[in-house]
Amino acid sequence: MGNLCECLGNFFGRKNTNVRVSLPAVCFIWQIAMIVLFGIFVRYDEESDVKKWLELKESANITSNIENDFYFRYPSFQDVHVMIFVGFGFLMTFLKRYSFSGVGFNFLIAAFGLQWALLMQGWFHSLDPVTATISIGVESMINADFCCAGSLIAMGALLGKVSPVQLMIVTLFGVTLFAVEEYIILDLLHCRDAGGSMVIHAFGGYYGLAISWVLYRPKLHQSKRLNGSVYHSDMFAMIGTLFLWMFWPSFNSAITDHGDGQPRAAINTYLALASSVLTAVAISSMSQKKGKLDMVHIQNATLAGGVAMGTAAEFMITPYGSLIVGFCCGIISTFGYLFVTPFLEKTLKLQDTCGIHNLHAVPGMLGGFVGAIVAAFANEDVYGKEGLKRVFDFEGDFANRTPGTQGGFQAAGTCVAIAFGLVGGGVVGLILRFPIWGDPADDNCFDDEVYWEVPEEDEEEIIPPVLEYNNHMIHKHQDISESNFSVEQS
Amino acid sequence: MGNLCECLGNFFGRKNTNVRVSLPAVCFIWQIAMIVLFGIFVRYDEESDVKKWLELKESANITSNIENDFYFRYPSFQDVHVMIFVGFGFLMTFLKRYSFSGVGFNFLIAAFGLQWALLMQGWFHSLDPVTATISIGVESMINADFCCAGSLIAMGALLGKVSPVQLMIVTLFGVTLFAVEEYIILDLLHCRDAGGSMVIHAFGGYYGLAISWVLYRPKLHQSKRLNGSVYHSDMFAMIGTLFLWMFWPSFNSAITDHGDGQPRAAINTYLALASSVLTAVAISSMSQKKGKLDMVHIQNATLAGGVAMGTAAEFMITPYGSLIVGFCCGIISTFGYLFVTPFLEKTLKLQDTCGIHNLHAVPGMLGGFVGAIVAAFANEDVYGKEGLKRVFDFEGDFANRTPGTQGGFQAAGTCVAIAFGLVGGGVVGLILRFPIWGDPADDNCFDDEVYWEVPEEDEEEIIPPVLEYNNHMIHKHQDISESNFSVEQS
Amino acid sequence: MGNLCECLGNFFGRKNTNVRVSLPAVCFIWQIAMIVLFGIFVRYDEESDVKKWLELKESANITSNIENDFYFRYPSFQDVHVMIFVGFGFLMTFLKRYSFSGVGFNFLIAAFGLQWALLMQGWFHSLDPVTATISIGVESMINADFCCAGSLIAMGALLGKVSPVQLMIVTLFGVTLFAVEEYIILDLLHCRDAGGSMVIHAFGGYYGLAISWVLYRPKLHQSKRLNGSVYHSDMFAMIGTLFLWMFWPSFNSAITDHGDGQPRAAINTYLALASSVLTAVAISSMSQKKGKLDMVHIQNATLAGGVAMGTAAEFMITPYGSLIVGFCCGIISTFGYLFVTPFLEKTLKLQDTCGIHNLHAVPGMLGGFVGAIVAAFANEDVYGKEGLKRVFDFEGDFANRTPGTQGGFQAAGTCVAIAFGLVGGGVVGLILRFPIWGDPADDNCFDDEVYWEVPEEDEEEIIPPVLEYNNHMIHKHQDISESNFSVEQS
Repeated sequence: MGNLCECLGNFFGRKNTNVRVSLPAVCFIWQIAMIVLFGIFVRYDEESDVKKWLELKESANITSNIENDFYFRYPSFQDVHVMIFVGFGFLMTFLKRYSFSGVGFNFLIAAFGLQWALLMQGWFHSLDPVTATISIGVESMINADFCCAGSLIAMGALLGKVSPVQLMIVTLFGVTLFAVEEYIILDLLHCRDAGGSMVIHAFGGYYGLAISWVLYRPKLHQSKRLNGSVYHSDMFAMIGTLFLWMFWPSFNSAITDHGDGQPRAAINTYLALASSVLTAVAISSMSQKKGKLDMVHIQNATLAGGVAMGTAAEFMITPYGSLIVGFCCGIISTFGYLFVTPFLEKTLKLQDTCGIHNLHAVPGMLGGFVGAIVAAFANEDVYGKEGLKRVFDFEGDFANRTPGTQGGFQAAGTCVAIAFGLVGGGVVGLILRFPIWGDPADDNCFDDEVYWEVPEEDEEEIIPPVLEYNNHMIHKHQDISESNFSVEQS
Repeated sequence: MGNLCECLGNFFGRKNTNVRVSLPAVCFIWQIAMIVLFGIFVRYDEESDVKKWLELKESANITSNIENDFYFRYPSFQDVHVMIFVGFGFLMTFLKRYSFSGVGFNFLIAAFGLQWALLMQGWFHSLDPVTATISIGVESMINADFCCAGSLIAMGALLGKVSPVQLMIVTLFGVTLFAVEEYIILDLLHCRDAGGSMVIHAFGGYYGLAISWVLYRPKLHQSKRLNGSVYHSDMFAMIGTLFLWMFWPSFNSAITDHGDGQPRAAINTYLALASSVLTAVAISSMSQKKGKLDMVHIQNATLAGGVAMGTAAEFMITPYGSLIVGFCCGIISTFGYLFVTPFLEKTLKLQDTCGIHNLHAVPGMLGGFVGAIVAAFANEDVYGKEGLKRVFDFEGDFANRTPGTQGGFQAAGTCVAIAFGLVGGGVVGLILRFPIWGDPADDNCFDDEVYWEVPEEDEEEIIPPVLEYNNHMIHKHQDISESNFSVEQS
Repeated sequence: MGNLCECLGNFFGRKNTNVRVSLPAVCFIWQIAMIVLFGIFVRYDEESDVKKWLELKESANITSNIENDFYFRYPSFQDVHVMIFVGFGFLMTFLKRYSFSGVGFNFLIAAFGLQWALLMQGWFHSLDPVTATISIGVESMINADFCCAGSLIAMGALLGKVSPVQLMIVTLFGVTLFAVEEYIILDLLHCRDAGGSMVIHAFGGYYGLAISWVLYRPKLHQSKRLNGSVYHSDMFAMIGTLFLWMFWPSFNSAITDHGDGQPRAAINTYLALASSVLTAVAISSMSQKKGKLDMVHIQNATLAGGVAMGTAAEFMITPYGSLIVGFCCGIISTFGYLFVTPFLEKTLKLQDTCGIHNLHAVPGMLGGFVGAIVAAFANEDVYGKEGLKRVFDFEGDFANRTPGTQGGFQAAGTCVAIAFGLVGGGVVGLILRFPIWGDPADDNCFDDEVYWEVPEEDEEEIIPPVLEYNNHMIHKHQDISESNFSVEQS
């Protein structure tokens, strides 16, 4: 397969990064497809349709509009929305000359992904068997944003090495795979995963890593000069970090149970994140000879606690349990950035630009297993009889499931998510190797110039003293032709 | 009139940009006026006054504090607030040397505008005939922020070419005109316009364009070097874009009906915005020879879907209807940036710095007509009998209005908004031409230096290698006097 | 004491800024201590524990999950959370080469501080006498964030002059002192202080000033070159300013009474802040010969109205009363930056990097007294009989307190807060003078290089024209050795 691709590559000649046909084509055709499919399938749910809501109020004897799910979940939705667009977007602006692409492509693929997610998740979870329609509401929007997150995580591993068309394909398949694995994990295995340690982070992480592994570029060092940050690009990335960090309690509590479920998930996540910060700082400082901190760790490893609490946040993990999870994941994630990412690149030929292995894949997997353990030890003393049913949804077909069994299924769910990520990513990676998607050459990666009209910097402004000096010198050395200065006067 | 102004200009001599007297005078006098007028007119409403709230709870048999309007609207208010100050503010930081003014003047005029809006909107909409007082609450704050938005949009056309004193005047009249046209459109014509396609965007857009047309500067090309972005100023502008984009669903749903109205408006806006992103990217890429994207389009045209859904978001436009609106407006807006703005500047002598014509004026107008069409086709099958009354407020004097008639009035409302913008903007533009407001000369536009103490860049830090090299050279060529270096050591 | 410290300093030799041992040690040990103490003391409260919530719903006859405190306060919590991490964090990025530390150390100490605050505030306010446990919920998280704010304010005075280890110590003691003074002011004196003019701002301000006074550096001018902003660092600081400004209504209303209390506090704060902006701009413009605005004033003094409304926001101060408070504090704060900060530095030997004296200490103190006055004039005409009880909590031991007396206690509370700040800060300052904490030398302040791995700027990119010119010159003057260019090719 690899050889075939290279042959095709040679056939097509030198890499062509012109996406003037492919990108508009993909955007237009897919957007039109969305419109058609939405026309056929998508309707307002009973809480956002005026007729159905008035009927529901009467039939269910709802006395106040505040009972509409909107008022339970909309603030959390907006926080999640900020995480997806500003959080993930700005986190990927840390490269010195790839900030436009980081935030811009994130914007593009999330905007497409959420539409496709509404359809895919609708078909799998809420297709009305009678009318063959999907009903969407506030919770659907949250789930659609969640679903995008999987693909945005994968984008982190590929950052700087692929074209926007390839990212659209990553998202198309990413969202599709997500909806399927989510259906298996949440519906068939009946796992609980409110914040998506398994279905979002473990899946998204391994999906991205597998794609990146297939797309390995042996000569990527030719773009080394651009694979790093500058002072202000690191500051922009901190905007992303902080909005992710602050709103992670909303992420993990956005679709948990009304009532006690949402505050419990928020508190647990809040504590785990705080704990991660301290251990990430500690390891970062210890790892450098002079004890200096590394921005990469502060930007990423501080978030590991939130990833790892994605499954267990809604359980009765206890406040100190949350702190312990954050404590461990802050350490593991920072170690990952220090040792595992370089190791993966050297040994496994796996180039992971943002280090999603350390922030999403591993903490997500750990979060899945933490959830399994906490679920397995759940009991009526702590949850109460009703509470146990309520938290684990032991109803209908699953009324007789015990916490121990649930724990087993949770662990199995984690494995399913990882398997979907690895296999799906491998296949998608092969698709992306076809030399028609406009990806940059090895010496041209991490560069906004390839896909963006980048403003020229205004030299005049930045270095007047030198120019003045040079001007002076010219008068001394008339043998230097004046034409050299034309570039500076543009 | 133009000649008179020029004469006066010559009389006063070379443009004086010193606002040391005028700006403090305007701020102090107007703020004191606000205090006096608030003292006379403004009181807490019954949901924020402790005495009245306790009485209301008893008289209206309200059992829970959660029924207070605060809990329905405050999260949306905060999102709108972010859009006004960070969204509009940072969107206007894209110029390389006008970022302080972009975000700072936006801050100033919104802070004034919201106070004046509370008064103006209070007088027109909620003046108590008995006590002659205005009652303010959470909804008033949202409306005041909305009202500011009209003037902030107008600021976009004028960015870089006017003084802060002129912007205060733009806001004083802008808010006044807004309150009047809003009264005509919402109260007299009984239009629905929850997200303000008509009253905010169409009005604000044409208001700014008319002012800018009157203030045409034939020699503006003299400031061309500063009328563009640099890499990091484009990144700051993306902060504005994304916060506008993310919170637009809150903007359009902030004052819609409790219950089904808010989620429906949010979903519709969410979908239209997503659709805009894809078509804006597509057109942007198609328009450039190598398929490269232009930051101007990504920063602006992606938002057109939100503008265009301002009226129809609360109607039953259906999810795919929202996608279609976003699809079209993303295209139209990007085409505007590519062709219409240059055309307007060349042919109509209309300089529109931020391109508000393409982001607000046209999508706002289209949004008004989309609203009219959707309203005209409303029927009891879709809305239910009660629902139709509820959504279009067919009560009291308007109990007998049909959807068809309503559609006509919606269209008329759009025209009223545009007329107010054009005529009002023309008059305000003439006022601003008096040469006493401290606006910059043609070769001095788009420059923060005029109104701000701008920190000097630290050359030492940025260019050490060259200095070192130069130092070396000096020793070789002793004829170059050392005094040349003094500038670099400051 | 000073001499002793200097002796020790000489003994230990030249300042050692290596924190490779101390910083990880502090982070690890304190985080482990948190885990142990949380394990012993901290439990979910009855609104976030599934068993207790179901019991509470039954016993208190709660019919809907929306009655859970989460839905009253969580949106405000998230706004406060943004203020703590993005607001305070980015406000402190204004220095040209200390932005990493500004936002990064803020992140670190807030993440530690909130854990310690949950414990300290729990012990003082909500320790269950039977089980000896602390119950935490959404309101605890808000209070913990508030409690951190005190120490973050203090950090503002010390910015650039202390090590992260010292900041951790500032926070450890700051949170401890905060919990004690809060207990005295709110519980023993029974003051009302919802937005913390007294307990947060006056305390935090004077605490930081006292520490800074003890840590006076006579030779700080040696770092003068770095004690200033550059263009883009000022823009980052504006992100902090605006998020503080926008969300301050949530800050002051976050823990006020359900129902009327929250909207009233939000409205009052919203108005005071708007008013501050206009007067801060006015004084800033007046103070400069050419009427130019100073970013320092816009970034800081515009917020003074929010600080000063921290106590009175929940009272019936009336809308115009709020405007007056904002009006005065905008003026006072800007004057502070113009005259008082330089005066304090020269005369009192008090170096206050961010000018917290003008933004927190003085407006906080004034806010305390404004609260006292408004409380003293409260009466049944305005509040109603029930309302008076409700707003001032005249119940239990305090059932017979009159508004007049309450006013006296409010004033006393302000004095207690200031006293705690000054005395506590003095003691903590002495502790920080021990020469073992890794603080920078006088000529090394305000520099991220000391504690961070800072990316090297890429010279090639910034100054190509000059390089080209130089290259040209080389060919003309072959006597210049090529080795000089090595630095530019790194």
